Amino acid sequence: MTDLTMQDALARLTTFWSGHGCLTVQPMNTEVGAGTLNPATSLRVLGPEPWKVAYVEPSVRPDDARYGDNPNRIQMHTQFQVILKPEPGNAQELYLESLAALGIDTRAHDIRFVEDNWASPALGAWGLGWEVWLDGLEITQFTYFQQSGGVALDPVSVEITYGMERILMALQGVRHFKEIAYAPGISYGEVFGQGEYEMSRYYLDDADIATHRELFDRYGDEAARMVELGLPIPAHVNVLKMSHAFNVLDARGAVSTSDRATAFARMRGLAHEVAEQWIAKRGQAGFPLGTVEPEGKAAPAPIVVPADTDPQTVAFEIGVEEMPPAEAQAARTHVEQRLRALLEGAHLDHGDVIVHATPRRIVAQIAAVAASEPDRTVTARGPKTAAAFDAEGNPTKAALGFARSNGVDVADLTTVESAGATHVAAVRTQNGRHALEVFADVIGDIAGGLRSGKNMRWSDPKLAFTRPIRWLGAMWGPHVIPAAASGLAAGRLTRAHRSSDEPILPIAAADDLAPALERNGIVLNEQDRRRRIVAQAAKAARAVDGAVDFDAEAALVDQVNFLVEQPVAVLGSFDESYLDLPDEVLTSVMRKHQRYFPVRGGDGELLPHFVAVANGPIDEPTVRVGNEAVLRARFEDAAFFYRADLKTPIEEMRQRLGHLAFADRLGSIADRADRIRAIAAALADLADIADEDRRVLTEAAALVKFDLGSQLVTEMTSLAGTLARTYALEAGKDGAVAEALFEAELPRQAGDRVPESTAGALLALADRLDFFVGLGSTVGMPTGSKDPFALRRAALGLIAVHRAAAPAVAHLSLHECIRAAASVQPVEVTAEHAGAMEGFLRDRLAQQLIDEGRRFDLVAAVLPLAERPALAEARLSELESELGSDRFERLAAAMQRISRILPSDVAAVSDFDRLTAASEQRLIAVLGDLDRADGADGRLDDWIELAAGLPDAVDAFFEEVLVMDPDPQVRSQRLGLLSALHRNAASRLDWSAVQI
Amino acid sequence: MTDLTMQDALARLTTFWSGHGCLTVQPMNTEVGAGTLNPATSLRVLGPEPWKVAYVEPSVRPDDARYGDNPNRIQMHTQFQVILKPEPGNAQELYLESLAALGIDTRAHDIRFVEDNWASPALGAWGLGWEVWLDGLEITQFTYFQQSGGVALDPVSVEITYGMERILMALQGVRHFKEIAYAPGISYGEVFGQGEYEMSRYYLDDADIATHRELFDRYGDEAARMVELGLPIPAHVNVLKMSHAFNVLDARGAVSTSDRATAFARMRGLAHEVAEQWIAKRGQAGFPLGTVEPEGKAAPAPIVVPADTDPQTVAFEIGVEEMPPAEAQAARTHVEQRLRALLEGAHLDHGDVIVHATPRRIVAQIAAVAASEPDRTVTARGPKTAAAFDAEGNPTKAALGFARSNGVDVADLTTVESAGATHVAAVRTQNGRHALEVFADVIGDIAGGLRSGKNMRWSDPKLAFTRPIRWLGAMWGPHVIPAAASGLAAGRLTRAHRSSDEPILPIAAADDLAPALERNGIVLNEQDRRRRIVAQAAKAARAVDGAVDFDAEAALVDQVNFLVEQPVAVLGSFDESYLDLPDEVLTSVMRKHQRYFPVRGGDGELLPHFVAVANGPIDEPTVRVGNEAVLRARFEDAAFFYRADLKTPIEEMRQRLGHLAFADRLGSIADRADRIRAIAAALADLADIADEDRRVLTEAAALVKFDLGSQLVTEMTSLAGTLARTYALEAGKDGAVAEALFEAELPRQAGDRVPESTAGALLALADRLDFFVGLGSTVGMPTGSKDPFALRRAALGLIAVHRAAAPAVAHLSLHECIRAAASVQPVEVTAEHAGAMEGFLRDRLAQQLIDEGRRFDLVAAVLPLAERPALAEARLSELESELGSDRFERLAAAMQRISRILPSDVAAVSDFDRLTAASEQRLIAVLGDLDRADGADGRLDDWIELAAGLPDAVDAFFEEVLVMDPDPQVRSQRLGLLSALHRNAASRLDWSAVQI
Repeated sequence: MTDLTMQDALARLTTFWSGHGCLTVQPMNTEVGAGTLNPATSLRVLGPEPWKVAYVEPSVRPDDARYGDNPNRIQMHTQFQVILKPEPGNAQELYLESLAALGIDTRAHDIRFVEDNWASPALGAWGLGWEVWLDGLEITQFTYFQQSGGVALDPVSVEITYGMERILMALQGVRHFKEIAYAPGISYGEVFGQGEYEMSRYYLDDADIATHRELFDRYGDEAARMVELGLPIPAHVNVLKMSHAFNVLDARGAVSTSDRATAFARMRGLAHEVAEQWIAKRGQAGFPLGTVEPEGKAAPAPIVVPADTDPQTVAFEIGVEEMPPAEAQAARTHVEQRLRALLEGAHLDHGDVIVHATPRRIVAQIAAVAASEPDRTVTARGPKTAAAFDAEGNPTKAALGFARSNGVDVADLTTVESAGATHVAAVRTQNGRHALEVFADVIGDIAGGLRSGKNMRWSDPKLAFTRPIRWLGAMWGPHVIPAAASGLAAGRLTRAHRSSDEPILPIAAADDLAPALERNGIVLNEQDRRRRIVAQAAKAARAVDGAVDFDAEAALVDQVNFLVEQPVAVLGSFDESYLDLPDEVLTSVMRKHQRYFPVRGGDGELLPHFVAVANGPIDEPTVRVGNEAVLRARFEDAAFFYRADLKTPIEEMRQRLGHLAFADRLGSIADRADRIRAIAAALADLADIADEDRRVLTEAAALVKFDLGSQLVTEMTSLAGTLARTYALEAGKDGAVAEALFEAELPRQAGDRVPESTAGALLALADRLDFFVGLGSTVGMPTGSKDPFALRRAALGLIAVHRAAAPAVAHLSLHECIRAAASVQPVEVTAEHAGAMEGFLRDRLAQQLIDEGRRFDLVAAVLPLAERPALAEARLSELESELGSDRFERLAAAMQRISRILPSDVAAVSDFDRLTAASEQRLIAVLGDLDRADGADGRLDDWIELAAGLPDAVDAFFEEVLVMDPDPQVRSQRLGLLSALHRNAASRLDWSAVQI
Repeated sequence: MTDLTMQDALARLTTFWSGHGCLTVQPMNTEVGAGTLNPATSLRVLGPEPWKVAYVEPSVRPDDARYGDNPNRIQMHTQFQVILKPEPGNAQELYLESLAALGIDTRAHDIRFVEDNWASPALGAWGLGWEVWLDGLEITQFTYFQQSGGVALDPVSVEITYGMERILMALQGVRHFKEIAYAPGISYGEVFGQGEYEMSRYYLDDADIATHRELFDRYGDEAARMVELGLPIPAHVNVLKMSHAFNVLDARGAVSTSDRATAFARMRGLAHEVAEQWIAKRGQAGFPLGTVEPEGKAAPAPIVVPADTDPQTVAFEIGVEEMPPAEAQAARTHVEQRLRALLEGAHLDHGDVIVHATPRRIVAQIAAVAASEPDRTVTARGPKTAAAFDAEGNPTKAALGFARSNGVDVADLTTVESAGATHVAAVRTQNGRHALEVFADVIGDIAGGLRSGKNMRWSDPKLAFTRPIRWLGAMWGPHVIPAAASGLAAGRLTRAHRSSDEPILPIAAADDLAPALERNGIVLNEQDRRRRIVAQAAKAARAVDGAVDFDAEAALVDQVNFLVEQPVAVLGSFDESYLDLPDEVLTSVMRKHQRYFPVRGGDGELLPHFVAVANGPIDEPTVRVGNEAVLRARFEDAAFFYRADLKTPIEEMRQRLGHLAFADRLGSIADRADRIRAIAAALADLADIADEDRRVLTEAAALVKFDLGSQLVTEMTSLAGTLARTYALEAGKDGAVAEALFEAELPRQAGDRVPESTAGALLALADRLDFFVGLGSTVGMPTGSKDPFALRRAALGLIAVHRAAAPAVAHLSLHECIRAAASVQPVEVTAEHAGAMEGFLRDRLAQQLIDEGRRFDLVAAVLPLAERPALAEARLSELESELGSDRFERLAAAMQRISRILPSDVAAVSDFDRLTAASEQRLIAVLGDLDRADGADGRLDDWIELAAGLPDAVDAFFEEVLVMDPDPQVRSQRLGLLSALHRNAASRLDWSAVQI
């Protein structure tokens, strides 16, 4: 608790940062969604000029308007924005100092840097960094800005964006933004409350849509004209005005998916031109603020070979600003593999290799590393002896040159045999490199070569990694290994927790690194750390007679394990009343947003407790209270919407869909839901499903997607479907209908569950069909990396549902599915479109199967059946089990032999009267057997059984007769016979694709 | 000089004002022209809630865009805005402290509060106050806000608006805004220079006009809808966006006079609704911030009669915040008159009455005021004696009541005679009031009754004056007179210069007031002060062998005299190179903008010097340097434009007029200039002017108004015409043409010169005719107080030019003039319109003549000639000289006799064959004489001479014959004769109007 007011907090931050050389400028004088859009950031981060600035930015997010009712959500929130260009290398530390300047005790609180990658697709901007958590509360965005206006930034800027309302609510311990003490004696609500209400009304309810569409266009035209005239600043201002008009439209629910893509593309294009022009104009002016010189490469220290020759431990540490959990794990693996590979290539004796990682470091230890590689004898082969000496036995020029280049006297050349010829050879002793030398190379290679899935740049001229690498420690025994990676030279320093008394520690010798970290509370070994987290969390839960379901939470444990170096579990509680919220809502908030472990009682029901894992040392009560407040706020948010939803009949929610735009030319979400219903009904007719399934489908289809009209789903989109089920049950719908409504949304991401019920499967199919066919025929199919509406994902979901569906549904062909969807679209779907869509779906099925580890050639072999994905998949499995068997391989070889000989234009023949030879008759008999087989969807092994005689018959046929008989009739009948066999076989499998 | 940077200055002001209880808020997040428009001012000043706020406001004025080239003019300047509500009574003192907080030595500098009344017609807002001058530089607007959105403010707020760039330029001693040190190591130009250039391009050259018209309308519609929905805040935001769109249009030259009026009306209407809704909504919420209680009335101290009985001096002082010069003079006169009148009504012996005034006080001294009025005997008359006593001589109830009400015993009643009756009477002695009592009333009456031409309110509940009355001093000898005016009670304190060591001084006795002020340097006596100003200025000018032409500068001396209490003339210089600018430009800047006295050499030419008069004590070098810098900046501004203009061919300026809108449906200024040319040509044809005049006219008409296309006239509109002459001469035109171009703009205000040349007169006439006829037939003629386009002024100018023109021009009838103007208008001017215009002009002529002191009846008598104003005026003069002569009076009586008898429908008659009587023949003979007279524009005395026989003839006629003869023919001829006489006479004069 503090008596710091909001206005004083802003003043203190201003003073702090101007004390660190930042300019202070004013907020932008047109509405912006974030301080980033102020040209003091978005333009100034471009180009080579240095720039340090700090400013307040009241940021307008029409979408966040809540009439001032919601305690945490406001249409205009106050950002404090800092840009440091170039990034100074210690921005995290400066940031922590700024928190101290606000009176925050950074030792008592749990302050963490939690992965958050920022991107503004509308403006072609992105960066990597973190949200900064104060006891679980996100108070700041901290980003290394990588691109603005589609232009890569060099130098890289650090952007620090403080969320002032959140910080003040936390510091003042108030529960509603209106209660913040804004200035002595006057609250935030008193200053801004009425504005929040009225501007919320405007943005959510009353702003005129046609007007804002017009504004968007007009400003867009102005921006484009300004770009043409070479005036990036007014162009940028007009882009900002476009952006605000767009945001208003969005808050009014007037932006369809395709509107959004079109608008973003237009803004992004303009932002790019603005960025390029800005840089060009600054360049023309000679970069008036100067240019940032890139940092130099670190000069590796000369290697001074120490006297001691005993083996010693090598330890090296790559210190990184907080890595995302997945990246930290991947980096650990990479370092270990690379290290082992490099050591294999060297000749240095050494003991065990151990590599550990925390969010901030990757540490390797190699036991008993010899002082040097042994010296080795090396023999180099030279020219053939015949060419090395002339007739007189004198060395030729070739021999002399070879000797010289190998540093031996020509007289010392010996000979070696090679491929039956005698060559001259030079034998010399190569001195083993010292361990310091070997590891300088190894570590330099490893540190310099670290890469992640998504890499960023910082001030270093060469390095690129998930987050900036800030230090390099490397020792062989007590000796620093003179490794270097670009601008970074290794030393003997390591780092403890940032709030330690001694955050930077010198290490005496390699063996001391791990103990020193241990002494400072850092648990280097990720296995240990994981065990401690689990043990501490379990213990904390036991204190309230609860438990954490660590099986269910395995992914979360893994994540938390790489969010802390020093795990300190903190048990927190929340008001029991929140337990009225659906389980999924509570756990989704706890896990996804807060990384808390839900605590459950013996019956599996949630208890009003959670376990947070802080990165100690901390003041436990402080951190607990803070985390509880954050969770309370989040639950309050959810409860606010949930209560409102429960008061709303679900039919009304369904009606609200009429106000949500779907896509250009495709109407509203309500229109889309109507289409889903119609498609599902059409498919049900084709599939001939059971009466009960039909009843469930009919009831569910009338409501499908209704929960998109609920407030809670609007807030937590990941709960779409889940809440449909909850709300449907609350509204008295039966369980099957509720489940079908849930299943209609499955799968929610790759690898997610798929519908089990027939009604659910049909709705899920219909949903994705409508999406895929509608957008595919209006926006177009994805090409290359361009897939703005994620049609690929929709297609993959469609295939996944289809593959998993009950036989009645799985029997539907993709062709029928697409036709059903096409017939209800408000736009024409041409035959050509439909054909392309079928092809696209077949390709996705193939891809999906291959991604699942199936053999490429086998997948290709079953593709002719892809019209029915389940059939294709079943055939693939049969194929896989036949594979390797003698009968199959002989059959396949026979079929491929036939294929090879068959020209592409063989006419169909039904009469084989000229084929009288035994081998011909035999083949005709086989064909007869095969023609009696089941249709294409019959089992493969039945067919193979029937075709058992075919390989021998084919062999005999080709042995006895000449297919290309001079008599055209005979020739035609022989080819016709082969063709008939081929056709029959091909309906089972594309035999030619199988690699036998 | 200081090393205070711009960002530090903003931080210091923020700290200063938040230390005085102001909230700090952020600038508005949409473009505003001033901090006033931020709802933190424009809405919060409304209603009864208290509010104290300070904020920075980057203010956008597209019109001021100069590509960053002009040293002082920028499209976005930085205001620091403070609102104190209610006004605290010491805002001026707080303000001076804030300057000290910026490191400004308020004792060294000349800091003055110079009248500036602020109004925003677009937003229905106004206030009275000052521009604050720092050594002649306007650094702050200081306003007592009286009305916002058309709603009177109660309580009144003080608004203080610092112009930060100006302050910083002065403090840092830099000459261009770009050179301001914005933050350590970075200049204002480096931060904002490119933005200035590019946004200037946008606002002046490239913003799309159609788009901004559309924006204006769209935002206007949104604002109106929000008003309907009861949402004042979004409505206000939309009004701000309208306003910015309007400002952009204006900067693009796309706003015609009528556009402006229409737009202002629309915005004003919306602003008014916003204001009313805001107050209503705050009221519905119960005025959450509380309500300001009005200050109480001062309780007058009880009068304690002192022991001393000798006459003593009375002195009283009404202390006012800086009054405008004219108001200070008027207040002095008013106080003196009122004081004398009140003293006449009292019965107090006293000596001389002297009243003086300075900008800050009105001081009265009354010598030798007796301690008391003398006691007086008062006789009250009661009922008649008969009713006072009954038959027994006993007093009746009436007598008893009368005695009681007069406080005498019934036995003491005496009798008085009145109107022949005897009444009982009560005689009693009325004690004279003490001087303290008398003056308490007198001073209370005077101070409470002070009013000015334009009054304002402040925190006092009852008082209203040109500026707040802040103190009241009143003494009779050593005794405080217990006077009070509303919340203000008199005391013995006076005030010296605000920067004195002792700004508030106690006064021992009335006689000490003037000496105490004198000791403190304040020159109370305005005559003395004026003499000192003149003497000091003359002396200063002599130092550079120059002189001030005090005759020419009399008005300025009067003004300066009431801008200072303590005149200190400061001689300043400017670079000689500025003397290349036209004299009028230099003197206009010096006089009008800076109140400096121009200094001239013996030859009357300007010297590069000026005299400023500071309000001492000051540090003279500091103030001189400051004033020189200000003048340099202003001259530089003018020179910048002047140089640019000289490079521009005047024909090109003339072409630029095509980009300046004139009025709706009336095209551009170029169109208007074309029409003026056409009208002048048509009038010249009618007037048949001399060849040389025609040549001059033709050449001048082709260029008329061209200087409106110059940059300097755009800046200093009062120089229109003046610069046309200068530029025409520079362009090689001959003197006559140049003079005609100058005269075309005359008269510039009421009482100004009128054209002397024929060409000038025709152009001036044509100019006003086009304006009057064009707008009169599109916007409509003025009605009541509605005259948005100042058509009255145009009409008065037209008449003034016409009256003064050479005979050839003066001979043109108003009808011809209007017809000429009507025929070239792009809109139809109906006969009805034209008729109304003629009537309007005739009325203006009458008004003008009456305003000049001519007799109303005589003006009415010559109105029939008003078609030719000069003729009407000449006839009026003749009439005035005839008036009182016997011959005229008899003639007038005769004509009025004829008028009275003539029915309105007398038929014309040319045959008088039945009129044979001598008196009839005599009258016919007179008619014959008169018919031989010159036309209606002949001299009146000639006509009177011819009519010499008429009075007698008329008398004889009426005596001898009966006009209404029974014979209809005779009757008709007699009436016809009278009618013919009447008609002839009426062509000279409306005889019936003359009051004889």
